[in-house]
Amino acid sequence: MRDVCVVGLGLIGGSVARAARAAGREVWGATASPADAEAARGDGVEVSDLAAALDRAARSDALVVVAVPLPAVEEVLRAVPAGTRVTDVVSVKGPVADLVRRVAPGVRYVGGHPMAGTSASGWAAGRADLFRDAAWVVALDDDASPDLLLDVIALALDTGAHVVPTTSAEHDAAVARISHLPHLLAAVLASVGADGGALALSLAAGSFGDGTRVAGTRPELVRAMCEGNRTALLDAVDDALGRLGAARGSLASTGGLAKTIDAGHAARGSLDAIRSSTGTPFDLDLTAPDALERLRALGREGGRVTSLEGATLRARTS
Amino acid sequence: MRDVCVVGLGLIGGSVARAARAAGREVWGATASPADAEAARGDGVEVSDLAAALDRAARSDALVVVAVPLPAVEEVLRAVPAGTRVTDVVSVKGPVADLVRRVAPGVRYVGGHPMAGTSASGWAAGRADLFRDAAWVVALDDDASPDLLLDVIALALDTGAHVVPTTSAEHDAAVARISHLPHLLAAVLASVGADGGALALSLAAGSFGDGTRVAGTRPELVRAMCEGNRTALLDAVDDALGRLGAARGSLASTGGLAKTIDAGHAARGSLDAIRSSTGTPFDLDLTAPDALERLRALGREGGRVTSLEGATLRARTS
Repeated sequence: MRDVCVVGLGLIGGSVARAARAAGREVWGATASPADAEAARGDGVEVSDLAAALDRAARSDALVVVAVPLPAVEEVLRAVPAGTRVTDVVSVKGPVADLVRRVAPGVRYVGGHPMAGTSASGWAAGRADLFRDAAWVVALDDDASPDLLLDVIALALDTGAHVVPTTSAEHDAAVARISHLPHLLAAVLASVGADGGALALSLAAGSFGDGTRVAGTRPELVRAMCEGNRTALLDAVDDALGRLGAARGSLASTGGLAKTIDAGHAARGSLDAIRSSTGTPFDLDLTAPDALERLRALGREGGRVTSLEGATLRARTS
Repeated sequence: MRDVCVVGLGLIGGSVARAARAAGREVWGATASPADAEAARGDGVEVSDLAAALDRAARSDALVVVAVPLPAVEEVLRAVPAGTRVTDVVSVKGPVADLVRRVAPGVRYVGGHPMAGTSASGWAAGRADLFRDAAWVVALDDDASPDLLLDVIALALDTGAHVVPTTSAEHDAAVARISHLPHLLAAVLASVGADGGALALSLAAGSFGDGTRVAGTRPELVRAMCEGNRTALLDAVDDALGRLGAARGSLASTGGLAKTIDAGHAARGSLDAIRSSTGTPFDLDLTAPDALERLRALGREGGRVTSLEGATLRARTS
């Protein structure tokens, strides 16, 4: 089991560190936050400055997990020695991959994104079981080395997560639709409701409460997430504008909303179906020549990797 | 306590009948559904054909509660003798008030809308406590007689609901924003997510699940609700299109979403504030010359009527 150096010891980084240690790995870290450093040390994790932590990683051929917010990633990458094994847990993958190519082309990199979190932040909010049964996206871009890929998959599985293999571009397009657009629509809906004044808000029941819940998330987190995925989010917003505009046109002209409502009902049915499905298990040899292509296809079809033995992945379809 | 004749014995009508009976009132009804008729009789409620039920209501000066879907309201109204006291529990108020003026101008009418429900339907799904602590909108239009107003408020309070006094127009505008638009946006969001394929749906977590929950509601119910409130819903959709379009423009031009996200966060804060507020109690004399105006102002400000003694309403601000 490879050692792990976690850079950024907030909610996600702190949970990765705890989970990796609980799985029996050697773990150390660095953070720009004195409070997180002190809290992590209090929980027995060795914390040093960035240069020292990365130097130790280079010497022990450890896996460096970049767990800082997107705006801070570039500075961290500039400090990583060439040849180091690097992954990250940032919520957008294309922009991080671009940064690696631009400022740290000598590192070995495979990106990741564990789909878990809470509204709290900081080391103290982290938990060793935060990722249990969650999806952990691993970005299988064309330049991903199979060797490092295995490292990243093994770490994700060690935390209790399931691995969803895909590419950076497909990941960013997907999360724009199922995470960033929902946050934007929740904000829009909350504002339209509040425009109706106290009467409207006092009558609001389940549909408005559910539809606006994530508008209560800290605005700076939502902005960072949405703005960081600008290109893919624009596509998703255009899709939503087109569908809402078509509904408006139909309501104004014929008075009917069947197409919009029926399509939405069928789509929600697809979500429920994929959530209740247990899938079909199968094995996948990571050393096979078409392994990357097969993994990408698995992710595209909603499947997951659930465990690993040697270089053999145990997966299940959606 | 005035007798109650409920026309339509589905989820809402059946719950009104049960709650009115539990409050000690004489209750009978009529329904076009043989299954609901049989089930209601099985629970000890006298069910006859529409003409006989309405005739008994006229003879005993009872309050008739129209609890059929909007498309069936006109036929019921045509059968009601002039002079009868009538209210309704349909989810849209302007179109029902228009129907009354057009086809039953001789009845005494004050509209209502209890804001409660479940995804189930039919007499068997009803409960005597369905309306407990729910908002029951009472429409104080200019032609509402204070005498009948008291009847409708008393019935709503008897079921355990709180009365939100407002006008038909203000009610329809409010529910377009906090109920009908949320259903439409949920349908749009579900479709945009499903457009992302199995990968997107397999990565969907809380924000997408919450934002699409009501897209799982039976499409015919959602259509009836949204299409029946066409004019007000168009205004709400235009507001949403304007706000989403502005967000799109800002994201494309400057890359920033601060205005949209911050406004949504503040709006959701307003909802949380109104929900956690306990308000200030005060009394309101329904025989005062400005009672109607004061009641409408109370509803506009998010307040509720919580009980009744004689002609004195006990209310609370938002």
